[in-house]
Amino acid sequence: MKRKGLLIILSSPSGAGKSTLARRLMAWDETLSFSVSATTRPPRPGETDGKDYSFKARPEFEAMVAAGEMLEHAEVFGQLYGSPRAAITQAMQEGRDTLFDIDWQGGQQIKQAMAGDVVSIFILPPSIAELERRLRSRGQDSDAVIAGRMAKSQAEISHWAEYDYVLVNRDLDEAEAELKTILRAERMRRDRQPGLTDFVRGLNREFDER
Amino acid sequence: MKRKGLLIILSSPSGAGKSTLARRLMAWDETLSFSVSATTRPPRPGETDGKDYSFKARPEFEAMVAAGEMLEHAEVFGQLYGSPRAAITQAMQEGRDTLFDIDWQGGQQIKQAMAGDVVSIFILPPSIAELERRLRSRGQDSDAVIAGRMAKSQAEISHWAEYDYVLVNRDLDEAEAELKTILRAERMRRDRQPGLTDFVRGLNREFDER
Repeated sequence: MKRKGLLIILSSPSGAGKSTLARRLMAWDETLSFSVSATTRPPRPGETDGKDYSFKARPEFEAMVAAGEMLEHAEVFGQLYGSPRAAITQAMQEGRDTLFDIDWQGGQQIKQAMAGDVVSIFILPPSIAELERRLRSRGQDSDAVIAGRMAKSQAEISHWAEYDYVLVNRDLDEAEAELKTILRAERMRRDRQPGLTDFVRGLNREFDER
Repeated sequence: MKRKGLLIILSSPSGAGKSTLARRLMAWDETLSFSVSATTRPPRPGETDGKDYSFKARPEFEAMVAAGEMLEHAEVFGQLYGSPRAAITQAMQEGRDTLFDIDWQGGQQIKQAMAGDVVSIFILPPSIAELERRLRSRGQDSDAVIAGRMAKSQAEISHWAEYDYVLVNRDLDEAEAELKTILRAERMRRDRQPGLTDFVRGLNREFDER
């Protein structure tokens, strides 16, 4: 019997290293499925449709919501963001875990909808000075945009206590190792190993045939 | 703020490698405290009082139970076994995790009493043939004793589904690594990191002072 795939939610303020860590996890475990968020916001330079985001016109996005095709969605700064259900359902049925790089609003909705199948992880920055430094080092945003992100970061951090695991990203390699540890351990939980029932049945048969 | 120590329950049928794995965990993490079980059964050759077991006369054991000094206790094959409370409470207060090498009866009582502070792990043998081989290779027991242990093993295995984590000990090094992974991940759970509240308070102060 195949196990049902897990939904792994990574949330953090922008600049805490979440996207880099998500990429590293994807490279580490090729069975992982990445949930590409849909959004109505326009692509930024360097973003690829279908990889970074699935870019949608608002009517198309709203039609998907109406048809129940979004597992979660929310409006942020006037733009819609959501997680299309189809890829997630397919990965779960194939026994593959899905990684979500989403904010607390999306995380909360997925936890409500899929409770037992969700593992949620919040990534904190070591300090706010470091968070701002990382945001500025991208060098693509104005001071006003940075200020807006910092306000959003503070709001995001206020939700840290809703997550199963919390880690502080002081060092990327260390944080990566911690994420892998969490995934490995979660996969060892009894209720994530449906094959055990058959395995123990086999042990009992062996006892009885002695 | 110091975190409260965890109670880590290792259970398995005799011969599945539990005691070896417990010893390895103790060697790996010197902050771990091992809960030395008390028992009324006589010492076996090579067993040290206060290390393998705390050997007690029955009246003394029963007085401890009456005084509430056992966190759990049970009678097996006419002998009493129990976990003295004092060392466990002390370790928890010091923020050190305690390792229990106990059977399902003891595990069940500790889970009832200390719910949120318990992580329970069941270790399965790869096969019953291998379990019997390991039991016989100790070379100290008669066929009748082996038969009794095998019956007890089957009963013990029947409780595997009451544990948080289950692992199959096919290889000691691999099983040891899996146990360490579980411990590391459990310590990263939000509710096991009381220091996070202060840490996030510090981040908020940093936001507000910008």
